[in-house]
Amino acid sequence: MELEEIKELLEQKKFNELKNKLKEMKSADISALLDELDKESVIKVFRILSKEKAGMTFSYIESDRREKLIQDLTDAELKSVMDELFMDDTVDLIEEMPSNIVPKILKAVSKADRKVINELLKYPEDSAGSMMTTEFIDLKEDMTVEDALQRIRDIGTDSETIHTCYVLNSNRVLQGIINIKDILLADKNTVIKDIMETNIISVNTTDDQEDVAKMFDKYDFYALPVVDTENRLVGIITVDDAINVLREEISEDFEKMAAIQPNEEGYFETSVFKHAKNRILWLLILMLSSAITGGIITEYENAFAAVPLLVAFIPMIMGTGGNCGSQSSTLIIRGLATDEIKLKDIFKVLWKEIRVSVIVGIVLAIVNGIRIMIQYKDLQLAIVIGLTLIGTVTLAKMLGCLLPLLAKKLKLDPAIMAAPLITTLVDIFSILVYFQIATAIMGL
Amino acid sequence: MELEEIKELLEQKKFNELKNKLKEMKSADISALLDELDKESVIKVFRILSKEKAGMTFSYIESDRREKLIQDLTDAELKSVMDELFMDDTVDLIEEMPSNIVPKILKAVSKADRKVINELLKYPEDSAGSMMTTEFIDLKEDMTVEDALQRIRDIGTDSETIHTCYVLNSNRVLQGIINIKDILLADKNTVIKDIMETNIISVNTTDDQEDVAKMFDKYDFYALPVVDTENRLVGIITVDDAINVLREEISEDFEKMAAIQPNEEGYFETSVFKHAKNRILWLLILMLSSAITGGIITEYENAFAAVPLLVAFIPMIMGTGGNCGSQSSTLIIRGLATDEIKLKDIFKVLWKEIRVSVIVGIVLAIVNGIRIMIQYKDLQLAIVIGLTLIGTVTLAKMLGCLLPLLAKKLKLDPAIMAAPLITTLVDIFSILVYFQIATAIMGL
Repeated sequence: MELEEIKELLEQKKFNELKNKLKEMKSADISALLDELDKESVIKVFRILSKEKAGMTFSYIESDRREKLIQDLTDAELKSVMDELFMDDTVDLIEEMPSNIVPKILKAVSKADRKVINELLKYPEDSAGSMMTTEFIDLKEDMTVEDALQRIRDIGTDSETIHTCYVLNSNRVLQGIINIKDILLADKNTVIKDIMETNIISVNTTDDQEDVAKMFDKYDFYALPVVDTENRLVGIITVDDAINVLREEISEDFEKMAAIQPNEEGYFETSVFKHAKNRILWLLILMLSSAITGGIITEYENAFAAVPLLVAFIPMIMGTGGNCGSQSSTLIIRGLATDEIKLKDIFKVLWKEIRVSVIVGIVLAIVNGIRIMIQYKDLQLAIVIGLTLIGTVTLAKMLGCLLPLLAKKLKLDPAIMAAPLITTLVDIFSILVYFQIATAIMGL
Repeated sequence: MELEEIKELLEQKKFNELKNKLKEMKSADISALLDELDKESVIKVFRILSKEKAGMTFSYIESDRREKLIQDLTDAELKSVMDELFMDDTVDLIEEMPSNIVPKILKAVSKADRKVINELLKYPEDSAGSMMTTEFIDLKEDMTVEDALQRIRDIGTDSETIHTCYVLNSNRVLQGIINIKDILLADKNTVIKDIMETNIISVNTTDDQEDVAKMFDKYDFYALPVVDTENRLVGIITVDDAINVLREEISEDFEKMAAIQPNEEGYFETSVFKHAKNRILWLLILMLSSAITGGIITEYENAFAAVPLLVAFIPMIMGTGGNCGSQSSTLIIRGLATDEIKLKDIFKVLWKEIRVSVIVGIVLAIVNGIRIMIQYKDLQLAIVIGLTLIGTVTLAKMLGCLLPLLAKKLKLDPAIMAAPLITTLVDIFSILVYFQIATAIMGL
């Protein structure tokens, strides 16, 4: 269904028809439509949804619409929405909402849930603890398959996934995990202990969410258990939440690599003032750094006074250097992010980049030499520019691979050593190389 | 276990100890170790693994090690590995291996599987068809829950996931889907038809893999059905494969945005020559484009002959313009990739970027003005540079948001309109703006 259609049905008060259309739609699609609808109408559509769908839809819509919706819903309606949310979504909601809304939300959840929420809110924002949900299937070692299936039937409705079940002892320490597939495929009298997997990969509540997301990628899990310092199971993280984190972390990397301070809100959600603020800091740093390049140029005033054409090649040399540097740094930053490149590979990387630089530098020098010979018929200039290109390319690629590795070594995020910073640094060196070569060869 | 430990155990021929250690490890971790081990020793470790673990480990290791391993394994050993692989992994393997290895692989699979493989190989490389596996649970509408559970027990071992089951009619047309949770939680005499979900999201065999991966992100699926043009179910795609595609597509975007031709192989797997080749094309295009900027500078030879200091500010103006442009283009490219920004938002985006530009431009102009007043005590120069900065920032941000949207409109990948291209274009305009303002104000 399209936005226009919803608007029309709402206007004509054809609520029954709207209700039937919405029944056919997935919650994610309904929420996408609600995100486009004017805030005042959201509540009207929302009230038509079934209880279950309302809960699911609510967990997908964007935060300013959620805020308005919570204000518009009656306490009873909000309670029924909160009943449908899993604990991780509830906690995300509370973390996101302004403090004047939070009491209304807390009032809508049961006392027992409120206790769990308060525990979950204590975990640092980007930790496994803040990603996890507390609704999972727990089994005991001495249960038979039949007992286990009964337990799943008893508590499965409230559990976020029944795909993986967790075997705990009386202290809630994690003993083993077992997939629903292995339970179903085993004889009903088999004891869980005999078929559970005891070689368990788990994460700690304080682990970083990015590392957690990477584990899903590496091990192809559907869910991952989260334990406390005493190895007691406190929650699980499901793969859909891991995908969300992956997406967030990648957007953050893209932003950092473009010299923007990372921002969790979407493009349109972010105010103009905040956009400006996120972009100004790095622009200022880079702008003032390029004053160094300017200073170097001033030193060679006599050179370009004698051969003004030298100035015309500054953009090309700086541009090529910058591009070469960002090619290398992007590959290295990406390799570090996916764990393909490790710190110990530094010499392997360096040796590879040197060889690439030589090939790239020579090709660029030749192509440019031909252009200069055609355009200016000046062999000396062609040689100066050719040598400068080879030097700049090599230097740029060295900086481009070394700086991200250095950042990693210093436990900084390699993503800050991306195109903008590399380009500014390469500018300084390439201008130096250029004028050194030019003055030497041309005898200026 | 660490690499050194494996090497030691291998050298001392302590195979039993090694076997026990490997038993405790996940396949993904074993394969990571094998990727670091010398190629000749891989087969020794591989032969110690249990049949199931060998299959899983095989599906994770990198392609040049797989190639060597296939050559080293006996036909019988290879057959037992192939038995453990799911159809999608088998197809990926065949697509990846050089043609002299493929016959040995095909000999190791059953005749029936060979037929399926040949069908799957016909799908385009980046399509849903090439991602899917054909091992899934199919049910019939009139089955009871008890029948369904029996069916799952019968064919579940060979199925990639039992999390979602697919209800087909006699023509294998998809009628509904049902989660294992809903089956387990229902009464055993319930008919599947009554509890299955009929509002199904499916993809077509020819759909693009990137769109498929996005659907997992949007709908939080564990598996997605793939149908042919007659809506017959031909396979399923599981979330782990979707995560792989997401990762690949993102690496591709990073590469494109750094002016590198995308490459599916890893950094170390790619040869020096291929690295150079992937980087040269864009460098040449950008290098020759920057000759335009050079040409413009030549036009203003008299201006910088009169005020040589003007040359010193070229790097700063070009750098700031480039950085502003790439900030905007990165945000827009990313927004388009995650579907947050759509083509119809063009005026919303433009209006936002204009306001951001004004704030950013003024702040940069003021800071730089102060620097110039302190360093050179030259108000006229401060005004020229300040006005140029405001003009350049605005222009750069306009280009940075418009060009990716234009690319999208022309059905090109917006990622090509990233930092390197934007920077080169901004260079041209910013130099023009700079010398126009300078000559006008300074009366050159």
